[in-house]
Amino acid sequence: MTRPLRVAMIGYGFMGAAHSVGWRQAPRVFGLPAEVEMAVVVGRNGKAVAEAATQWGWQESATDWREVIGRDDIDIVDIVTPGDSHAEIAIAALEAGKHVIVEKPLSNTVAEGEAMADAAARAAERGVKSMVGFTYRRVPAVTLLRDLIAEGKIGRIHRVRASYQQDWLVDPAAPLSWRLQKELAGSGALGDIGAHAIDLTQFVTGQSVDRVSGTIDTIIAERPLADGSGTGSVTVDDIALFTGRLSGGALASFDASRFATGRKNALAIEVSGEFGALAWNFEDLNSLQYYDGTADSRAQGFAQILVTEPVHPYVSAWWPAGHMLGYEHGFTHQVVDLVGAIADGAPLHSSFEEGLGVQRVLDAVERSSAAESAWVETRSAVAV
Amino acid sequence: MTRPLRVAMIGYGFMGAAHSVGWRQAPRVFGLPAEVEMAVVVGRNGKAVAEAATQWGWQESATDWREVIGRDDIDIVDIVTPGDSHAEIAIAALEAGKHVIVEKPLSNTVAEGEAMADAAARAAERGVKSMVGFTYRRVPAVTLLRDLIAEGKIGRIHRVRASYQQDWLVDPAAPLSWRLQKELAGSGALGDIGAHAIDLTQFVTGQSVDRVSGTIDTIIAERPLADGSGTGSVTVDDIALFTGRLSGGALASFDASRFATGRKNALAIEVSGEFGALAWNFEDLNSLQYYDGTADSRAQGFAQILVTEPVHPYVSAWWPAGHMLGYEHGFTHQVVDLVGAIADGAPLHSSFEEGLGVQRVLDAVERSSAAESAWVETRSAVAV
Amino acid sequence: MTRPLRVAMIGYGFMGAAHSVGWRQAPRVFGLPAEVEMAVVVGRNGKAVAEAATQWGWQESATDWREVIGRDDIDIVDIVTPGDSHAEIAIAALEAGKHVIVEKPLSNTVAEGEAMADAAARAAERGVKSMVGFTYRRVPAVTLLRDLIAEGKIGRIHRVRASYQQDWLVDPAAPLSWRLQKELAGSGALGDIGAHAIDLTQFVTGQSVDRVSGTIDTIIAERPLADGSGTGSVTVDDIALFTGRLSGGALASFDASRFATGRKNALAIEVSGEFGALAWNFEDLNSLQYYDGTADSRAQGFAQILVTEPVHPYVSAWWPAGHMLGYEHGFTHQVVDLVGAIADGAPLHSSFEEGLGVQRVLDAVERSSAAESAWVETRSAVAV
Amino acid sequence: MTRPLRVAMIGYGFMGAAHSVGWRQAPRVFGLPAEVEMAVVVGRNGKAVAEAATQWGWQESATDWREVIGRDDIDIVDIVTPGDSHAEIAIAALEAGKHVIVEKPLSNTVAEGEAMADAAARAAERGVKSMVGFTYRRVPAVTLLRDLIAEGKIGRIHRVRASYQQDWLVDPAAPLSWRLQKELAGSGALGDIGAHAIDLTQFVTGQSVDRVSGTIDTIIAERPLADGSGTGSVTVDDIALFTGRLSGGALASFDASRFATGRKNALAIEVSGEFGALAWNFEDLNSLQYYDGTADSRAQGFAQILVTEPVHPYVSAWWPAGHMLGYEHGFTHQVVDLVGAIADGAPLHSSFEEGLGVQRVLDAVERSSAAESAWVETRSAVAV
Repeated sequence: MTRPLRVAMIGYGFMGAAHSVGWRQAPRVFGLPAEVEMAVVVGRNGKAVAEAATQWGWQESATDWREVIGRDDIDIVDIVTPGDSHAEIAIAALEAGKHVIVEKPLSNTVAEGEAMADAAARAAERGVKSMVGFTYRRVPAVTLLRDLIAEGKIGRIHRVRASYQQDWLVDPAAPLSWRLQKELAGSGALGDIGAHAIDLTQFVTGQSVDRVSGTIDTIIAERPLADGSGTGSVTVDDIALFTGRLSGGALASFDASRFATGRKNALAIEVSGEFGALAWNFEDLNSLQYYDGTADSRAQGFAQILVTEPVHPYVSAWWPAGHMLGYEHGFTHQVVDLVGAIADGAPLHSSFEEGLGVQRVLDAVERSSAAESAWVETRSAVAV
Repeated sequence: MTRPLRVAMIGYGFMGAAHSVGWRQAPRVFGLPAEVEMAVVVGRNGKAVAEAATQWGWQESATDWREVIGRDDIDIVDIVTPGDSHAEIAIAALEAGKHVIVEKPLSNTVAEGEAMADAAARAAERGVKSMVGFTYRRVPAVTLLRDLIAEGKIGRIHRVRASYQQDWLVDPAAPLSWRLQKELAGSGALGDIGAHAIDLTQFVTGQSVDRVSGTIDTIIAERPLADGSGTGSVTVDDIALFTGRLSGGALASFDASRFATGRKNALAIEVSGEFGALAWNFEDLNSLQYYDGTADSRAQGFAQILVTEPVHPYVSAWWPAGHMLGYEHGFTHQVVDLVGAIADGAPLHSSFEEGLGVQRVLDAVERSSAAESAWVETRSAVAV
Repeated sequence: MTRPLRVAMIGYGFMGAAHSVGWRQAPRVFGLPAEVEMAVVVGRNGKAVAEAATQWGWQESATDWREVIGRDDIDIVDIVTPGDSHAEIAIAALEAGKHVIVEKPLSNTVAEGEAMADAAARAAERGVKSMVGFTYRRVPAVTLLRDLIAEGKIGRIHRVRASYQQDWLVDPAAPLSWRLQKELAGSGALGDIGAHAIDLTQFVTGQSVDRVSGTIDTIIAERPLADGSGTGSVTVDDIALFTGRLSGGALASFDASRFATGRKNALAIEVSGEFGALAWNFEDLNSLQYYDGTADSRAQGFAQILVTEPVHPYVSAWWPAGHMLGYEHGFTHQVVDLVGAIADGAPLHSSFEEGLGVQRVLDAVERSSAAESAWVETRSAVAV
Repeated sequence: MTRPLRVAMIGYGFMGAAHSVGWRQAPRVFGLPAEVEMAVVVGRNGKAVAEAATQWGWQESATDWREVIGRDDIDIVDIVTPGDSHAEIAIAALEAGKHVIVEKPLSNTVAEGEAMADAAARAAERGVKSMVGFTYRRVPAVTLLRDLIAEGKIGRIHRVRASYQQDWLVDPAAPLSWRLQKELAGSGALGDIGAHAIDLTQFVTGQSVDRVSGTIDTIIAERPLADGSGTGSVTVDDIALFTGRLSGGALASFDASRFATGRKNALAIEVSGEFGALAWNFEDLNSLQYYDGTADSRAQGFAQILVTEPVHPYVSAWWPAGHMLGYEHGFTHQVVDLVGAIADGAPLHSSFEEGLGVQRVLDAVERSSAAESAWVETRSAVAV
């Protein structure tokens, strides 16, 4: 084996913690085809990032991402900064020949996403790998859902019903955080959680959302300022309802909301096909619902598959049959897949191009909403 | 007690069977404030309607509905004919001073519905009662859902998510029935099942859907003719996806589909409010899901209420606690409510005006779909 | 067709209401092979029974069951009196050549049950039919469960887990009703609800419970008298836990309790076999859970079959696909099966012999409990 | 802060992997009151244990546990060897002044367990901590269940229903592994999985199981040898059904089976009390079912609490609200609790005494089964 793959992580918020778990666990739980070292974590505040390095197990910390990207001993750059800096860092890293993971969303704008996808395509010609961190794809139940569709188990797809329901904005006394201000957050429920519903739909069906008609709305438009000095305006959406036309012809409905009282993290998808249906909900993470329309007509029903058996994706490396996985396992699987692609040339999904596809849909929903919800093309933003 | 209320039922298809159960069971199970007699069932085919009378327990049969409506011994007219004849029969009956139930939909067009609502309003001044047969309202779990909202248990309504999923058109070899031809059926999934989702939404929230943006579509557009002579075109929708703006300001999403593989009769609604949420699904008929956001913060979750206790609406007349009710019980409750209104002046909901409200939404969805899904007012049809 | 089958019902409590629904609905919903007439209902209190006749639709009432059983115009005797009178009435009716339904339990003692089974066997030689009213067998989901086992779908049976959970005695202030006094009720949770769990087990497996080891207990032994004059002793069990050895060799566990807080009517059974498993719970009446261990290994899970399709037992006579049935439909199916057996010679299950089999198990559980829970034979009562 | 707590782990099978995750994750995710170092892993096979050290991140490996226990630089000994060596190693470690975790079962015999509990009691006087690795107690939903009972939310306990269902022995062709031979495994379903059901019962109720009546059985008694040379006898139980009397007076039912087709890892418990009920199932790891019998009588039902909020036990250190945890998180929580007890003197549960309590119940079930299932005292083994 050659020298270890050495990783630099840029950024260190909540997502930094989750990505660190992935880097820490993957080599120990899975037999990776290359060694991995958590080399350096980068942040602007030197003291804080040094503490993060200690806390999460990075060998060192640094404050200048450009300098780190330029180091010869770094092979992989993992970007977990806010979305507005993704393009600059990722393009620089790719041009420096580093493999790149960027946390979702790929970017805050379609234009940036296009530049990133171009950079990734050029880098790929030199063998450089890149991916967007859509870790929900790598939940075993979701990967299995995709596999069963790809094998034709449910046949032609007739409809998709996708949603992401949360309830953390129900309380009108919740203060006006940065996530509710457009200049800081870019988008609200649509971009933050709706993006996952879109990505899952495109991932599991293998189809693109080509047109959309939708509405975004703000249910509580005025909230108290955190410092108690009065109130301020919520300038992002907190609910997004839209319909998409898939490239295969079917309609898909989407619903992203932070006012779904009682729903904590209900990312859900149901795909209905000519021979069956498949459904999944993050709140029941390890289960896949499968309706087999070809079974004995008296015995058809949605089966709750516990996706915890050795025959299921990613599972055999973990525990014996029947042991539940949790949220952060997707981050470990993401590392497994990237390292496999780098070291063994294994196929890798959730490319920058796919991340750009999600951004295009998000952008189109906003344009449709602004146009009285009339249908718009997801690709037309460029041309206009 | 005065003489019994004598009922004439016009029509005798599947709905005739269900209504007959209601008339037969209500007096025996509930202590009605007036006696009821199943006097006469009316149909064009004399032999068939005579058999229906025997089968379902009507005292006699007849072939001329006008003649029956004119009889002095008839007090209540129950209309279960196809939608295109509802207006003519119902208006005639109301003008003849008969109380009227008309099976949903109120009518096939908004114009007819308006004429019917006018007739009902005029008749009401003379003490004549009328109602549309939205029996799902009278499922105990749904009535309880409405009651809890009306009492303020979930506070201000933030969103509604309503759907009606079936799968009976998934098979592409299913023949072109009359239900799939616009000239005969009037509408497809939208009018037949989407109407229930709209009515439930308006009923339980006490709000109207004032604007809509929507799409109707036909997933399989060509089907074999039943006689094997080739294929014909499906001219109604088999999926309808739309968003409505409620009079209280919230958004409601709607999804009606006959291609939801594995979903047999999944009429479902979830109402999210500032203090909690309530959800119901016909496939779990006797349960109501209730999230109480005011409970101990560690103990909040959707409670599955078995709506089978004596404290629940309609239940105490049936069986001891914990005994399940079925689909047709709603038809019995409908009779109970109508007879109570006639004999005791008890309040009665699902008026013709409410039925017209549903027709207006259906009409608006079709207009929106034809206008690239842009938003339209549900009341503007009249003005245009 | 010959003259109608005329029915006399002896008794008119809660079960009388349920049986009346069965007699009233069966001829109207199903195409029975013989006409049925609700001739006479019998009770000791002339005024009360006359009211019951009017309420439930019996042609006449009477106060002397012996006289009624002697009438030539009566073909079927339906016995819904308390258990201590079952033997006398049923044996007299059978000897008079009447077909007999007796509500469960067959009898209060094994000795009475044996006499009844003997009488039924003798009557059967003359073509007289008899059955015990175990209506849960005739819930479509339960009949389907039985059918799938009989077809070998789950292979050899390895274990059964049966229970009946209620919570109506949780409140210590609930008064000392007659159901809690042994001299009136005979038995408590064991006989009243545990009997259903035993019957379902023997019915769906086609095997008998041959030995048992069990414990019965009284959780709250002293309760207020209803008249407020003090307290009295509860002299029946309110929980029964026992294990049975099936004739096929497997173990079955049983749990009957009236202290299962929050469980309203949770009669549940799970049968595990070498090729799969089947499970049902009354609180989800229309669903059957089926685990098919022969399916694709990645796609195995408990399927929730909605037993509401025309291919399912009893369903096609009712409503279109996907419409829920309720508790009382089992009473209608019971009438359908009995009339089919009488008029067409169709096979009929839940014989007196089968009812006696349940009584023997109940008796054995009490004997085991009294013997420090040591195993006892269910048939040994006779020998001792 | 003083020097880090240095850990030696004795053994390195599947449980070694799980414990290693705990040691690796706890210091990074939780703010522990003391530093922890994974010092040395010990096994008899020098090459294999050295590989395990590299794989799981231990600083070094060793082959002589006695030598390691004698080292001054070791503070904590974590024992994951087979049960027959627990007593010797644990007692030696405690006497050497090391804090000890021992994986469940505490021991293979009651006598060994007593010696261990004695040693732990003596060590405790010198401030030495010890615990048994019942990690299911530290699943957030289970800890919450215990807390709610301790706070009196469900009042007096009326009954417990506990079970552990698996299906890995259903296939008769599965070979005769060491787990199925008594001389190697000690016990079958009873000791391996039934032990968890017993421990949960005693933990969440705070009561002991004082008497039992039970049956153990072997469903498939002959299996093929792994080497193809014929068949051999299964000498342990594969199903255990028993009833226990709790110290508070209530009955508890237990069911442990490896023939529960379709049940993968269904450790489940339901506790019914005078004011409510609580239920949990490992297959739905992050949910707690809570029936609040003091709520509005119309709104009572089992609430599904997603135990993923910051207010819930252990959760706030992990991810934002609504993110699922998995099986191995319990091992991290175990480390958190032990380190807290050592460094801060925080209270610690799952003591050796509690582990011994479980062994006594297991032993009593075997004695009862051998005595025709008659009741036996769980403490009588000592006296005899």
